[in-house]
Amino acid sequence: MQPFKRFEDKLSAIKMLALDVDGVLTKGDLIYTASGEFIKVFNVKDGLGLKLLQEKGIIVAIITARKSDVVTTRMKELGIRFLYQGVDDKLQLIEDLTGQFMLYWNNIAYMGDDLNDLPVIQKAGFAACPSDAIDEVISACHYTSRKEGGKGAVREVADMILKCQQNK
Amino acid sequence: MQPFKRFEDKLSAIKMLALDVDGVLTKGDLIYTASGEFIKVFNVKDGLGLKLLQEKGIIVAIITARKSDVVTTRMKELGIRFLYQGVDDKLQLIEDLTGQFMLYWNNIAYMGDDLNDLPVIQKAGFAACPSDAIDEVISACHYTSRKEGGKGAVREVADMILKCQQNK
Amino acid sequence: MQPFKRFEDKLSAIKMLALDVDGVLTKGDLIYTASGEFIKVFNVKDGLGLKLLQEKGIIVAIITARKSDVVTTRMKELGIRFLYQGVDDKLQLIEDLTGQFMLYWNNIAYMGDDLNDLPVIQKAGFAACPSDAIDEVISACHYTSRKEGGKGAVREVADMILKCQQNK
Amino acid sequence: MQPFKRFEDKLSAIKMLALDVDGVLTKGDLIYTASGEFIKVFNVKDGLGLKLLQEKGIIVAIITARKSDVVTTRMKELGIRFLYQGVDDKLQLIEDLTGQFMLYWNNIAYMGDDLNDLPVIQKAGFAACPSDAIDEVISACHYTSRKEGGKGAVREVADMILKCQQNK
Repeated sequence: MQPFKRFEDKLSAIKMLALDVDGVLTKGDLIYTASGEFIKVFNVKDGLGLKLLQEKGIIVAIITARKSDVVTTRMKELGIRFLYQGVDDKLQLIEDLTGQFMLYWNNIAYMGDDLNDLPVIQKAGFAACPSDAIDEVISACHYTSRKEGGKGAVREVADMILKCQQNK
Repeated sequence: MQPFKRFEDKLSAIKMLALDVDGVLTKGDLIYTASGEFIKVFNVKDGLGLKLLQEKGIIVAIITARKSDVVTTRMKELGIRFLYQGVDDKLQLIEDLTGQFMLYWNNIAYMGDDLNDLPVIQKAGFAACPSDAIDEVISACHYTSRKEGGKGAVREVADMILKCQQNK
Repeated sequence: MQPFKRFEDKLSAIKMLALDVDGVLTKGDLIYTASGEFIKVFNVKDGLGLKLLQEKGIIVAIITARKSDVVTTRMKELGIRFLYQGVDDKLQLIEDLTGQFMLYWNNIAYMGDDLNDLPVIQKAGFAACPSDAIDEVISACHYTSRKEGGKGAVREVADMILKCQQNK
Repeated sequence: MQPFKRFEDKLSAIKMLALDVDGVLTKGDLIYTASGEFIKVFNVKDGLGLKLLQEKGIIVAIITARKSDVVTTRMKELGIRFLYQGVDDKLQLIEDLTGQFMLYWNNIAYMGDDLNDLPVIQKAGFAACPSDAIDEVISACHYTSRKEGGKGAVREVADMILKCQQNK
């Protein structure tokens, strides 16, 4: 059975995909110069997935504990307006977003890869992670992508949502 | 049977190799700074393959939906004159090229890795993709390279064309 | 048996984790421009591991034979005060640190990947290395990480220490 | 039998290790900005191997068809004086070097990964290549490294020479 079939119930309810950045939209590489971080590496296939989701009316939200102008630049290019950086409490922020958009937790898909993503993973309607997430996250998620962070893991989940909802 | 033997009929007719950039000539990494994209990573072995093709009189055309000065710089170094960036409709562009060069679709080899390459893949005389293309592209292509995009996938296909045509 | 259980005796005594940089906290890539080295790539998951260790009171020390302002920048961000660059004799330096902090060698965990790490590896209470260390180092260490340098090898060892000591 | 034992006869005669750059000392990545190539990624373990060879009196020569100030910078740091860039005919250059140093071809070890390395590979006393060399090179070499270019392939061969000659 194809993955999007196996999770049909959960995926058909999704109205928002919320994503961590480092290790999910990137390989987890933190690229430094002496003056700090100024480069990030995104994946071209993930980008197309996020565009297609938005064209279908799925909200894409980016939520990260770190702060980087590079992320702002890339997300603008992808037309993503819901970008939240420097977030300590991701659970509270998504609670706020559900209120703002009048959604329930079962409408939220989430991808994260580390400890600070666990509270959201435990509440999201569909929780997924890249194949190189930490063990605790893999155990807590509904689905582990076949791909690593920054190598198409986000696209894989975006496609699952799109395929499940394409006939709606 | 070696791959270039298996596709001998198709490969012997090829007069142009048209290529996508991101995910085919690169690993699909989009490397960003706060001021935008300004680095791309190409593969040294792919470069030699494209030079050898041109020495044999095969036209090399680069067709991408994105726009980057970096691509212009690299393609100039490789002596590639047929570079088309910011292309929304790759099928139409290659139709135009076939007219300009008086070629038929069976003279066109194409490599792509994502949805916007599918219309061309379905018409090209020989369609190939890197091993990390999306599933729909892999299903639609004649040949899937053993190598990933940006890691020598283009060289592998260039070598197949060269080996098949070397005694012509 | 989980790794942290297998080494329970050794891990429960650890009060300092000392780390090499290139090939341990990074993939071993030396990224050069014509004016020298100015970029290093660290791993986001390693970073969280080092923060968690310090919160639990474990001393984190970074000891490298090379010198790079980039390392200084990243370690400052992680709140690591014990950074020693340009070190020829790592064994002597750690001897000095044990004196300064009134520790014994069985309180020291060490991760290295190459020949100049061997003298420390042979004395450390718990010696570990990334999966892509040289053969001599792998043979000499108590534990070889499942992960490569710069891809979470340090986090794996940090988690082993944390899990073993969490109930202390 | 360990690799350095299997090739004991050949390795014991080696007095010079000559190396290609792109795809051997690097991963074959050509990293471009709009103004050209200005970054190269070397491997920290390869660097130590080249230092150890020189300490044992083995000449290290770097020979590449391309030209890059970055290579000059890195090789200076490693104390390598025999650096030849922009070389079209590598065979002729090494012929000249054998004359200059009064060596025979059986004193030359060579590592390359692509077509323009083949003439040297066919004459060198010991010819090796990274695991991701092109098929023709792999077929022509005495030894294929377990590692890819830029990921320690050079170190592996340096260690084979060093181990074989350590008791001389």
